[in-house]
Amino acid sequence: MAAKAKVTFLPSGRTIEVASGTTLYKAAVEAGVELNSVCGGKGKCGKCRVQVHGNYELDHIHPLTREELETGSFLACATRVRGEVRVFIPDTSTAGKGQILTTCKAACRRPDPPLRKVALTVPPPTLNDNLADLERVLRALGPSLAGDPHLELGTLQELPAVLRKRNFHMTASYMRCGSSSRLVRVEPGDTTAVNFGLAIDIGTTTVVVQLLNLRTGAVVRTAAAYNRQISCGEDVISRIDYASEGGLATLRKLVVETINMLVSDVCVNVPAQEVTSACIAGNTTMIHLFLGLDPSNIKLEPYIPVANNPPPLTARAAGLRIHPEAPVIIVPGRSGYVGGDITADVVASGMHKRKELALLIDVGTNGEVVLGNDQWLVGCSCSAGPAFEGGEVRFGMRAAEGAIERATVSDKLWLNYCTIGGTVARGICGSGLIDLISGLFVEGALDKAGRFRDLHTDSIRPGTEGKEFVVAPGSETANGKAIVLTEADIRNVIRTKAALYAAAAVLVNSMGQKMEDVQKVHICGGFGNYLNMDKAISIGLLPDLPRKRFDFMGNGALAGAAQCLLSRRSAAEASQVAARMTYMELSVNAAFMSEFTSSLFLPHTDEKLFPSVHPLVRSG
Amino acid sequence: MAAKAKVTFLPSGRTIEVASGTTLYKAAVEAGVELNSVCGGKGKCGKCRVQVHGNYELDHIHPLTREELETGSFLACATRVRGEVRVFIPDTSTAGKGQILTTCKAACRRPDPPLRKVALTVPPPTLNDNLADLERVLRALGPSLAGDPHLELGTLQELPAVLRKRNFHMTASYMRCGSSSRLVRVEPGDTTAVNFGLAIDIGTTTVVVQLLNLRTGAVVRTAAAYNRQISCGEDVISRIDYASEGGLATLRKLVVETINMLVSDVCVNVPAQEVTSACIAGNTTMIHLFLGLDPSNIKLEPYIPVANNPPPLTARAAGLRIHPEAPVIIVPGRSGYVGGDITADVVASGMHKRKELALLIDVGTNGEVVLGNDQWLVGCSCSAGPAFEGGEVRFGMRAAEGAIERATVSDKLWLNYCTIGGTVARGICGSGLIDLISGLFVEGALDKAGRFRDLHTDSIRPGTEGKEFVVAPGSETANGKAIVLTEADIRNVIRTKAALYAAAAVLVNSMGQKMEDVQKVHICGGFGNYLNMDKAISIGLLPDLPRKRFDFMGNGALAGAAQCLLSRRSAAEASQVAARMTYMELSVNAAFMSEFTSSLFLPHTDEKLFPSVHPLVRSG
Repeated sequence: MAAKAKVTFLPSGRTIEVASGTTLYKAAVEAGVELNSVCGGKGKCGKCRVQVHGNYELDHIHPLTREELETGSFLACATRVRGEVRVFIPDTSTAGKGQILTTCKAACRRPDPPLRKVALTVPPPTLNDNLADLERVLRALGPSLAGDPHLELGTLQELPAVLRKRNFHMTASYMRCGSSSRLVRVEPGDTTAVNFGLAIDIGTTTVVVQLLNLRTGAVVRTAAAYNRQISCGEDVISRIDYASEGGLATLRKLVVETINMLVSDVCVNVPAQEVTSACIAGNTTMIHLFLGLDPSNIKLEPYIPVANNPPPLTARAAGLRIHPEAPVIIVPGRSGYVGGDITADVVASGMHKRKELALLIDVGTNGEVVLGNDQWLVGCSCSAGPAFEGGEVRFGMRAAEGAIERATVSDKLWLNYCTIGGTVARGICGSGLIDLISGLFVEGALDKAGRFRDLHTDSIRPGTEGKEFVVAPGSETANGKAIVLTEADIRNVIRTKAALYAAAAVLVNSMGQKMEDVQKVHICGGFGNYLNMDKAISIGLLPDLPRKRFDFMGNGALAGAAQCLLSRRSAAEASQVAARMTYMELSVNAAFMSEFTSSLFLPHTDEKLFPSVHPLVRSG
Repeated sequence: MAAKAKVTFLPSGRTIEVASGTTLYKAAVEAGVELNSVCGGKGKCGKCRVQVHGNYELDHIHPLTREELETGSFLACATRVRGEVRVFIPDTSTAGKGQILTTCKAACRRPDPPLRKVALTVPPPTLNDNLADLERVLRALGPSLAGDPHLELGTLQELPAVLRKRNFHMTASYMRCGSSSRLVRVEPGDTTAVNFGLAIDIGTTTVVVQLLNLRTGAVVRTAAAYNRQISCGEDVISRIDYASEGGLATLRKLVVETINMLVSDVCVNVPAQEVTSACIAGNTTMIHLFLGLDPSNIKLEPYIPVANNPPPLTARAAGLRIHPEAPVIIVPGRSGYVGGDITADVVASGMHKRKELALLIDVGTNGEVVLGNDQWLVGCSCSAGPAFEGGEVRFGMRAAEGAIERATVSDKLWLNYCTIGGTVARGICGSGLIDLISGLFVEGALDKAGRFRDLHTDSIRPGTEGKEFVVAPGSETANGKAIVLTEADIRNVIRTKAALYAAAAVLVNSMGQKMEDVQKVHICGGFGNYLNMDKAISIGLLPDLPRKRFDFMGNGALAGAAQCLLSRRSAAEASQVAARMTYMELSVNAAFMSEFTSSLFLPHTDEKLFPSVHPLVRSG
């Protein structure tokens, strides 16, 4: 057996003992210490830089250049523990205090939650009416239960004392699931005034937990955090790889821990034991990891999940620290890449109930698009790429403190920007990137292909990867180094926006519609909420439609999960939406490849598609 | 905290540490050491005699006489540990090697078990047929499942690997329960040739486990043992008392241990993991204790169980060491004193499907009687008392080695007897008692009231409790002391047989029938099998009907449980039988009290009811 060595992480001071030879990255994951990584510890993304003191060894093939190594910071994934070490994790290698989208249009005036509580006055038994306790309670519940309900042995064990504590007055909590029912909880007396549930959005990057009062429909409290799985890779594919390489249990533990931490955050005045239902929306991979289901086949053609509609389960089985018998509803998904989060978006948008044609775009770590109305729905997913969340962009970062989130480019290419938290700049987040590229394009500094024009200005300079635009000089940044936007960065952003637009265009065309027929565009996802609509249209990310047709929904997955928790009808609609949505696989779709290629320009090859943009652009 | 002291039990040598002040009886229960007790450690039955050496203390009120105490053996329930002690448990204080009834008419030529195994050839997924694994398997299973089935998360977690191990050939095990189904297990390839299940009879005294091949219907192996709960009291009432006084968890553990020991006995060539269903029949209290349900209210008027028809559960929840997801079917009961064992008896007898009027008598530790046909069923229970199982009879014992099980009384009151195992006599079991009393009555030594006539013979002598009959002189017994039958013993046997006969008579009368209308009498229960029919009729235990109408079923509860395991139709019939049986509560029934009083004679007050007996009796 390998010798053990102690690793101390700073500034948190957390320590862990690991086998000699373990990478610092793995040690950080095990210790639960936050450390950025896009690639999941494969030495590809360069995001896990740390400073190390003590007994360590660099891998022979270390992804950093000699020059970078001389600065004294190394990639944690290519540095191995040999003896006691102290590891300093700089701010730039953690997500920081993030802005996580928790706002959503939930609201439900007359809740009719799937988890029903009914106060019963059960007639006490006599020699002539000698039904057993359970059968007596079921008789009192009457036909509201579908057939004999399922119940856990533990609930049955509690029943006789519960019945007799308040002289056969009791409250039953139950839920119908499909053709049967489940008796969730029995309590003495009338507790119908208390019915709490959790709506949970498990995103690849962020997790949001919302405590709802299911009696009034009110939001009690909302809490959000980064998904602790981030340390195992930032996108869905690197998580699947991590799971396939023996990390499934770790990933499950990390997301359950994230949720449980948020549960204790929201359960301030409400004991977690009083939370007796939960509804979870997430993309298919996130749901797999949450349930400990092997996601490997989602990555491989033909992209098959273990389940799109996982069977009902309890909080106990799921590992959630609420009432152990609380039913946990998983919003059903449609495919490996159109998951329950999109179903929840659709339910929250209401597009599945309206006659008019609507488009729904969820811009998260992945991009998903749904088109349809009350008659039909068609959905697809595109690997939008992580550009809008800080990936594949040299100074890209998530919407956290120090991120440039707004920027205005003047006609002289002077720049006004503001950062999240008003601190010195640390990088550029998604909305900042769109503002910058839109501004540079409109002011003529970028051509249609996203290349810098030669404008003889100090702001555009040659860099290691072609030309680059200086967004913030070293004097304005946290570490004294200039923040720049490179042509490679712009190419990646254009690929991302092109994929999203092409996906929408393919859906519209394949259904024999035109983009201008779309009466409503619902924008969901953390990123969408901070978007400047005009600028997003000017780079061709969103279609050029009348602005009043756009609806920024905020966190649609959370809103949809909350609706399913509050309303039996919404929960039933979610099942119907997932069942009747036609899934279009774009990875093998020739029309998509063609649309994508046409979209790899600012705003598009076909300028007629963006009539409002052309007049704004200063000709080069 | 009380000091701890070590107790060593001999001859087993088992030791346990208990708090000073603990009774030896409690220490034996905790240590799992076999020790007789009818009353459950209350100092009433005098069956837990032991010899003690070391540091102990007798309770001030010790139930034994000074004379008995001087022999050096004390009651374990009234002797407390003060320091290290050694406790010798004589043979006479253990059940010994018993005869447990495991024979039953099971047999099922064409099994159609509730637990179905289906081999599936699932079409592998393609881009055009991209259903998820679970939905794909459910589609292949088709409409044989009722709606979306329940399945455990663990089963779902296994599914992707199972599907792909044999190229999408797999076997699904599932069971319908009510309006829904449960997917129990998924395996690669075709395993339909292997389908094993357990039929289990949990009796108050004995537990029988039978392993069945559900494909062929064959019995693979049967094993039986005394219910380890015996050390906590021998009858249902003393078990309920023990449970009510904080002993529920202990009782549950003891019966689950008993079953699991027998499971490993029957699973010799079949791995216990391959046993994927079980069906359990037991009286209502035994089922409560097995499931950890508080039985207290069964003892109190109006005698209400927690559940007569417990919800479906898994082996994992039940604590059975077979496949953890194996469904455990509990044969439903009718009331606190007519349990699932009686339902199983009825199913095994087939009386619920025949036009002719039939009577079913289950003589176990309790007595239950059912009357009916294919149109109606009426059932009741009577506290028959433990006389036939050795309780309330001075030299009574269970049908174990050394028990007098057959006896013939000659006209000179000379006695021929034989013991179980052919050993020296240790006591008298139920069938021996009936033979003796019948013989003494027929030969004129007993009057109708069960009192000894003054016959001036050496065999009848005065004793401490009235006259007594010497069954075996000290020279023929294990401990050198004579085995006798007292008038008090005979009174207790008469009370027991009177209760059973009166119960049957009340059912027959209340339905407007006459005893001679009964076309079939099914006798179930361990005791019934060893019964001499003519002698049982001569004392008035069984009605005086043509002998060919009697059917000795053996262990009907086991047979019924096996049928429910082998046949979906039988399982459905069991539910119907329990639901449509009318329960008659005898404890408040005036007609029963009157019938009981009339039956407290040999064979009955009304000799016309026993026409075949009178000619045989030598007039006194």
